[in-house]
Amino acid sequence: VFLKLTIAYEGTAYAGWQTQKVGLGVQQVIEEALEKIFGIPLRLHSSSRTDTGVHARGMVAHLEVPDERWKMTIRKFPLAVNAMLPEDIRVMAAVRAPDGFHARFAALSKEYRYYVWNHFAMDPLRRQVAWLVPSSLDLAAMKQAAAVCQGTHDFAAFAGRRDYEMKTTVRTLHQFSFTKSGPLITFRLVGDGFLYKMCRGLVGTVIQVGQGKVAAEQMIEIISSRDRTLAGMTAPAHGLVLWRVNYR
Amino acid sequence: VFLKLTIAYEGTAYAGWQTQKVGLGVQQVIEEALEKIFGIPLRLHSSSRTDTGVHARGMVAHLEVPDERWKMTIRKFPLAVNAMLPEDIRVMAAVRAPDGFHARFAALSKEYRYYVWNHFAMDPLRRQVAWLVPSSLDLAAMKQAAAVCQGTHDFAAFAGRRDYEMKTTVRTLHQFSFTKSGPLITFRLVGDGFLYKMCRGLVGTVIQVGQGKVAAEQMIEIISSRDRTLAGMTAPAHGLVLWRVNYR
Repeated sequence: VFLKLTIAYEGTAYAGWQTQKVGLGVQQVIEEALEKIFGIPLRLHSSSRTDTGVHARGMVAHLEVPDERWKMTIRKFPLAVNAMLPEDIRVMAAVRAPDGFHARFAALSKEYRYYVWNHFAMDPLRRQVAWLVPSSLDLAAMKQAAAVCQGTHDFAAFAGRRDYEMKTTVRTLHQFSFTKSGPLITFRLVGDGFLYKMCRGLVGTVIQVGQGKVAAEQMIEIISSRDRTLAGMTAPAHGLVLWRVNYR
Repeated sequence: VFLKLTIAYEGTAYAGWQTQKVGLGVQQVIEEALEKIFGIPLRLHSSSRTDTGVHARGMVAHLEVPDERWKMTIRKFPLAVNAMLPEDIRVMAAVRAPDGFHARFAALSKEYRYYVWNHFAMDPLRRQVAWLVPSSLDLAAMKQAAAVCQGTHDFAAFAGRRDYEMKTTVRTLHQFSFTKSGPLITFRLVGDGFLYKMCRGLVGTVIQVGQGKVAAEQMIEIISSRDRTLAGMTAPAHGLVLWRVNYR
């Protein structure tokens, strides 16, 4: 049986999707649950690798379960896996994947959300999933800075070291915008793909524009420079949520 | 100095606002922080007493600090207190209270929100602040059941044992409604006052209406009966948030 899973997790306790030398990954926790259920090691193939502390609402992964091991309905499957998982990881949906589906290569676009709490005191109910920015922010300048990042650019200035092995650092950012409701600023980043730490670099730099530390006009210069040292700060991991992965 | 504080907390780790025989209350944690700052015991007087595990976004409390102990600006005060508090409790605002202000007796109305996550699997990012209800729900019946509760009624059927000492169990429920966005159902309860466990009794019973266990038409009969044994289940504490307290 060939399955497409939608997975949500609070990343606080994990070293990201993949297990690292210094910490457990979400992937391994789910694969261990699958092994308990099916009696053999099974491999999850994900759309994305989230970094340490990053959360997910709509991570997608595919999985092949040998037919001779498959003894349940597809409806029961996520309940069985969730019963084996800690509370901070959940399979939110499971469907049969189309032939030839690949969670990573078939992804058309991805959406991330980044939450900033702009007040002197953090909301205790959001503290695991938002970055506290107490300073006053120039929202108009931030809107301008975010808007110029949209479109197809070489985002090398916002690439992590990991990305230098990649063929290209050109990506298309379909949307980079935010809304503010009370102290909560919600950034929406939709693109055909994201470099390592690209979302957090973009949000961190836009926040620095809001603080007056970087001029809105510099944003396009930073991108054009392709120079990592010119980009602003990397926003912390715990404000970022992999929101959705889109397929045809 | 006479102060009005707005306080937020995640109730998960606490025995409610007040310290109980079996657990620490939020009030005591803040009073201990105040004592560290001002060097004398100070008493917080709150608008409400939330139950074990209930959260707050807008708890209001007043406080008198003797002038000879007061050596900071009002702007610095919440920062000083928050520096002494654990992450799950925060003073979100502090202003000078008007003469004769009393957080409890001056309250005109209170708003609670109750969150239900209506899906087979809990969202890991909401698990501390929502009740997981996996069964399918008849939303139209729920709307009807909630609507008939609005207005002035004797809510004795939804009162906890604690309330029998009170003079009256008559309360005015200005609003009891909900919205649904994806799996998230957000109940809004606004009233001039709430009996102990009244919010949770109302939400629990409306959910049972949604599940077909209680008929929508029974809602008004339950209220009229004034009989606690006729009301439905009490929804769990961790879905409830004291959202806001309104004053003139």
